[in-house]
Amino acid sequence: MPVLARLKGFQKLVTVEEAEKLFFANLEIKPLKAETVPLRQALNRVLAKDILAKEDLPRFDRSAVDGFAVKAEDTFGASQFKPKTLKITTATAIKGGEAKQVWTGNPIPNGANAVLMIENVKRVNDEIEVWTAVVPGENVSKRGEDIAQGEVAVKAGTRLKPQHLGLLASLGITEISVYKMPKVAVLATGNELVEAGGKPRKDQIFEANRLIIASLCQELGAEPLDLGIAKDDLKEISSKISQGLESADVVATTGGTSVGASDLVPTAVNAIGKPGVIVHGVAMRPAMPTALAVINNKPVIILSGNPVAAMFGFEVFARPLIFKMLGVKHEARPVVNAKLTRRTATALGRKTFVRVRVFQRGGEFYAEPISAKGSGVISTMTKANGYVVASENREGLAEGEIVQVRLFDVLEESDQYV
Amino acid sequence: MPVLARLKGFQKLVTVEEAEKLFFANLEIKPLKAETVPLRQALNRVLAKDILAKEDLPRFDRSAVDGFAVKAEDTFGASQFKPKTLKITTATAIKGGEAKQVWTGNPIPNGANAVLMIENVKRVNDEIEVWTAVVPGENVSKRGEDIAQGEVAVKAGTRLKPQHLGLLASLGITEISVYKMPKVAVLATGNELVEAGGKPRKDQIFEANRLIIASLCQELGAEPLDLGIAKDDLKEISSKISQGLESADVVATTGGTSVGASDLVPTAVNAIGKPGVIVHGVAMRPAMPTALAVINNKPVIILSGNPVAAMFGFEVFARPLIFKMLGVKHEARPVVNAKLTRRTATALGRKTFVRVRVFQRGGEFYAEPISAKGSGVISTMTKANGYVVASENREGLAEGEIVQVRLFDVLEESDQYV
Repeated sequence: MPVLARLKGFQKLVTVEEAEKLFFANLEIKPLKAETVPLRQALNRVLAKDILAKEDLPRFDRSAVDGFAVKAEDTFGASQFKPKTLKITTATAIKGGEAKQVWTGNPIPNGANAVLMIENVKRVNDEIEVWTAVVPGENVSKRGEDIAQGEVAVKAGTRLKPQHLGLLASLGITEISVYKMPKVAVLATGNELVEAGGKPRKDQIFEANRLIIASLCQELGAEPLDLGIAKDDLKEISSKISQGLESADVVATTGGTSVGASDLVPTAVNAIGKPGVIVHGVAMRPAMPTALAVINNKPVIILSGNPVAAMFGFEVFARPLIFKMLGVKHEARPVVNAKLTRRTATALGRKTFVRVRVFQRGGEFYAEPISAKGSGVISTMTKANGYVVASENREGLAEGEIVQVRLFDVLEESDQYV
Repeated sequence: MPVLARLKGFQKLVTVEEAEKLFFANLEIKPLKAETVPLRQALNRVLAKDILAKEDLPRFDRSAVDGFAVKAEDTFGASQFKPKTLKITTATAIKGGEAKQVWTGNPIPNGANAVLMIENVKRVNDEIEVWTAVVPGENVSKRGEDIAQGEVAVKAGTRLKPQHLGLLASLGITEISVYKMPKVAVLATGNELVEAGGKPRKDQIFEANRLIIASLCQELGAEPLDLGIAKDDLKEISSKISQGLESADVVATTGGTSVGASDLVPTAVNAIGKPGVIVHGVAMRPAMPTALAVINNKPVIILSGNPVAAMFGFEVFARPLIFKMLGVKHEARPVVNAKLTRRTATALGRKTFVRVRVFQRGGEFYAEPISAKGSGVISTMTKANGYVVASENREGLAEGEIVQVRLFDVLEESDQYV
């Protein structure tokens, strides 16, 4: 058997589940404090307190259709063969034998208890002929039918979508309490890195990880702070991470494994405070060198310098962390079950994140594995629109196997309607 | 048979497909002009021009792993039983019989053509014992392997996700050309409407549609402009819509069907210019009273005053329109196939949009129809996380039927891994 010669940090890889468990056992993560924002600036924010309806919605009995408000009893027995006749009134209340024209959303006039759809009557001068009977309550939106006074309209922990904002606006609400956005300070490390716009030497590359991590944070509703680029220097790295810990709720770093010192960032973190590095080396591919640390109850996510590995490390460890801070349940990515178009290799003993492109053909979903030599090839992420997670005990996924794909980009146009 | 007594606009409902066809036949919609933005402000914007790689990515042959760069030929025949020995060098180039330590991302030293993984060697003082042979190119990310100079890195029309920004940053790009965001002017109409914060009379309601439509626009990457609330008054409506046509690329209105004048907004629009209303009344449920108009090649989407119908009218007609202006392909919502938990009614002759809540149980997806009397009940939209589209020829969907659900909110937590 080959002798393991990895540096100490990687001698024992822990599973993804163990890593999560260890990390969160060493952190006391609660949603951040709440702040008040105008409702119209609250899209995608997370509600911090249950909102109760202060009044019924609808506020009064309303017509659900265009038609005529009537006493249901007056229509009983009406049919195509034996229509009933009602007199049209414009009074505020109706009496027996009368009907009042109403449009969708209009209050039901006093005396009426149902609405005849305009399609089911024939207007003849100031009368209508009724062809169908209605029962009491038919085509009426009862006061409080949507939300009754005192009911919870939207629960704390809800990520506010257009429909939630609409419901809250319908209740007359103009400002709400939402959880603050977690601040994530992002640091890239590495002597080989040059800021975009600069001139790289022959052995240098443009730094791209900060923008990737910052954008992933924005997508989740977290606020990225930029710590810039640190050289592969313990003091510089420590100083920037300390700065991040002061100004942010989370620090995320990339790199620090590329100049012969695999433990550079973890060592820098351990020098700052306790408990320090909790996990270093995770049984996953890509993103094996991910490390997780805690300093004075603030999390530090130490990601690979490889952009693809950094993205998957973020996906697995930073996402759930940010959700906890945001006060939302873990928001699963959209998933789709798809048939694998060809066999693909996975790493036995590692949780393997297989990049795939999902497409639809003849109503069936297919997942095409995106092949690449190195996990560092970032164009694999722009070619893929999702990934499949293969368990540690799999040695490859089979052609034709149905896999569950988590989507991180849109599907190609599917059939518009079923 | 009941006599149809609908007002003229609704006498002939057109199908959704006919409505789309008529609408787009009367509009010459092109992506908007491009503008230059810093790459770091480009998340979710749409690229207006293909971006070609100005140089190879990676910029040089790089090690894909942590290990030792070697001449592959020196390892041929190495095995556990017959290890080969190589001398460690720190020189910039290696000669036969030598190995140089490299970390992921390091340039491959001159003279080397492969990298031995650190796990597969044993270091003994200034030598390594090699247990496995490597072939030339093994564990090397070749220059240009990700993107070759001159290749298209990201195509025009791509909605920029974190991975696209990362790829562009890797190429040293700092600013890009994106399509301008379509401006959508949003007007609510109705005497019954009161601005949030105001005091509604007994028969009035809080206006909520503008915020819903504005938020839907924001989700798509369009910029909403607020035209406020217009009374049910032809002049006021015409004037506000004209104002919207001057300042925006699209006008969206809600309401104007609730005070006995089903054609109020369409009439106002027809008075402004040509060709005017193209479609009025669509064979769909909800959102039947939707109208589509064009004035001097600018689209006006006339939505129902009912918030749920307004949302579905927007979904079906405004979404594809905005995508065309944004220069992206229609972005299908995430879909999931799910088993319907119970029979649900649909309207024969109408395309029916059935709101459902999708949940996962034992690895299977289920769709629970959200029941409600009136389509106007907006809490049905906050209870649902997706919808099913039933064809015009369906009379109800069956319990246990597998339906394709389009998601407009997150799924509850699914199993974290497959």
